[in-house]
Amino acid sequence: MKEIRIFAPATVANVACGFDVLGFCLDSVGDEMVVRQVAKKGIVITKSIGYDLPTEIENNVAGVAAQAFINDFDPDLGIEIEIYKNIKPGSGVGSSAASAAGVVVALNELLGKPYNKEQLTAFAMKGEAVASNCEHADNIAPAIYGGFTLVKSCKPVKILEIPTPSNLFAVIIHPQIEIKTADSRAVLPQEIPLSQAIEQWANVGSLIHALHTSDYGLIKESLHDVVIETHRSKLIPHYDAVKKAALKAGALGCSISGSGPSIFTLNKGKATALHVEHAMRNVYKKTGIEFETYISPINQNGIKVLNM
Amino acid sequence: MKEIRIFAPATVANVACGFDVLGFCLDSVGDEMVVRQVAKKGIVITKSIGYDLPTEIENNVAGVAAQAFINDFDPDLGIEIEIYKNIKPGSGVGSSAASAAGVVVALNELLGKPYNKEQLTAFAMKGEAVASNCEHADNIAPAIYGGFTLVKSCKPVKILEIPTPSNLFAVIIHPQIEIKTADSRAVLPQEIPLSQAIEQWANVGSLIHALHTSDYGLIKESLHDVVIETHRSKLIPHYDAVKKAALKAGALGCSISGSGPSIFTLNKGKATALHVEHAMRNVYKKTGIEFETYISPINQNGIKVLNM
Repeated sequence: MKEIRIFAPATVANVACGFDVLGFCLDSVGDEMVVRQVAKKGIVITKSIGYDLPTEIENNVAGVAAQAFINDFDPDLGIEIEIYKNIKPGSGVGSSAASAAGVVVALNELLGKPYNKEQLTAFAMKGEAVASNCEHADNIAPAIYGGFTLVKSCKPVKILEIPTPSNLFAVIIHPQIEIKTADSRAVLPQEIPLSQAIEQWANVGSLIHALHTSDYGLIKESLHDVVIETHRSKLIPHYDAVKKAALKAGALGCSISGSGPSIFTLNKGKATALHVEHAMRNVYKKTGIEFETYISPINQNGIKVLNM
Repeated sequence: MKEIRIFAPATVANVACGFDVLGFCLDSVGDEMVVRQVAKKGIVITKSIGYDLPTEIENNVAGVAAQAFINDFDPDLGIEIEIYKNIKPGSGVGSSAASAAGVVVALNELLGKPYNKEQLTAFAMKGEAVASNCEHADNIAPAIYGGFTLVKSCKPVKILEIPTPSNLFAVIIHPQIEIKTADSRAVLPQEIPLSQAIEQWANVGSLIHALHTSDYGLIKESLHDVVIETHRSKLIPHYDAVKKAALKAGALGCSISGSGPSIFTLNKGKATALHVEHAMRNVYKKTGIEFETYISPINQNGIKVLNM
């Protein structure tokens, strides 16, 4: 029977001013998944390598996402899923989204592309809900579409593909600490000053314009979050020092990736990105906290078919 | 001595989701101004026709804006200003901004273009402050730049020129009522729910993307204001009925122009705009409130030199 192997990339959500709406796709880190047609109906996760995750379909994000797809398409066959996870769950770079988005894109390829990207996003969101208790597309959209995405709305799913300047590189630092989802939610304000909201939406509008016009200077001026960062950054040790060092080293902007603990920067050119990575590492080296960093161009295409 | 005659257009600020940041420029309604070099130093408003406005320099928006320009440039001559106002003060379509922006653009042309548009915006904002007690660029920016503008920040002045699809037409209805500035400010909330803010900035980002891509369907989906409209629309009689009729007649969106009482719609094509105007008029005809309406393409160039 047919099988497909795909690369499901890590992603950055909550891009500075774009809390809950803006994300982008990474290229150099991600999971691999194999999805295989089998004669016997049903979904089985036959392998889950890398991190200790539940393999019962209803408790696994890929399982639930695949089930949503299969329930709708109802093919006369079954599937087996192998998951090779590299993205650590809870690191803030879309680990669960990679699994959820990866499996539905793989299934779609395998079954002759019956669905469009918005439909695939909706299936994957069902899987994402297993991990985060709510259906959101912040990480799923960039994984499926590639580049920068704006989640215009979740119900109905409406994703906008924002042009991505070719010379943008992300640097991620991932402190090996755990932030409980409940904590990262609890620190969010229920209400915010209107003046802050206005500043934030000016920056969102400005960032979208800057991406359309490849205006790196304006990207830098727009990558500010005046609403969320001040609350969530308290949960990430040495956040301010890392940010300060990154900006000093030439980063266009620095903010929390997803709900953390990873911190991302965006940078013009690989040389600057390397310089910024070095500066960020230097801050964390002194802290005694384990961490890893990586550099990635923006992945313009999202999930990649490795072979079929 | 040299003189210049210019057309200073009306403008729409607070474009739906873009409260305080997004505006656009009209073409079919505006003031005219004549600015003349004279030997004797100083600024004199020699004529102010159309509406009863103060002509002392320090109490007139054009006077204060001109003074800001002159203080900086310090030419060895004086100027006379004639103002022919067509835009009714307090109507919500940038009457004071037209005067403030008009005079500084005229001066700049007359004196060999010593300043760029951002500098001119800053001068004009000093004039705007006379009328509104604060320096803002919501109406000044579209008057000076034309098209759609995003005020990224006021201090320092940073204006973004957003591409404007060629087939967009505005319809304005201006109920002849007065809304006191104090009232339109008093109804604004100091704080707003984070969820509303997120919806609003998703729409701002989406609208900027839609303008860049001339996606009229997405313009329609993005022209929503979930933050301000519900409060300020109460000050405008029959607002909901006008909006409902306009949308039913095919308008892409309908919202409050500036702080009202004017209501604007954006429409694809002139035929639809005429249809929408008719529908809006029909609502107001039954109310006994005097009103006027007008249709305008988006003015892509802003203030126009008529002769010099």
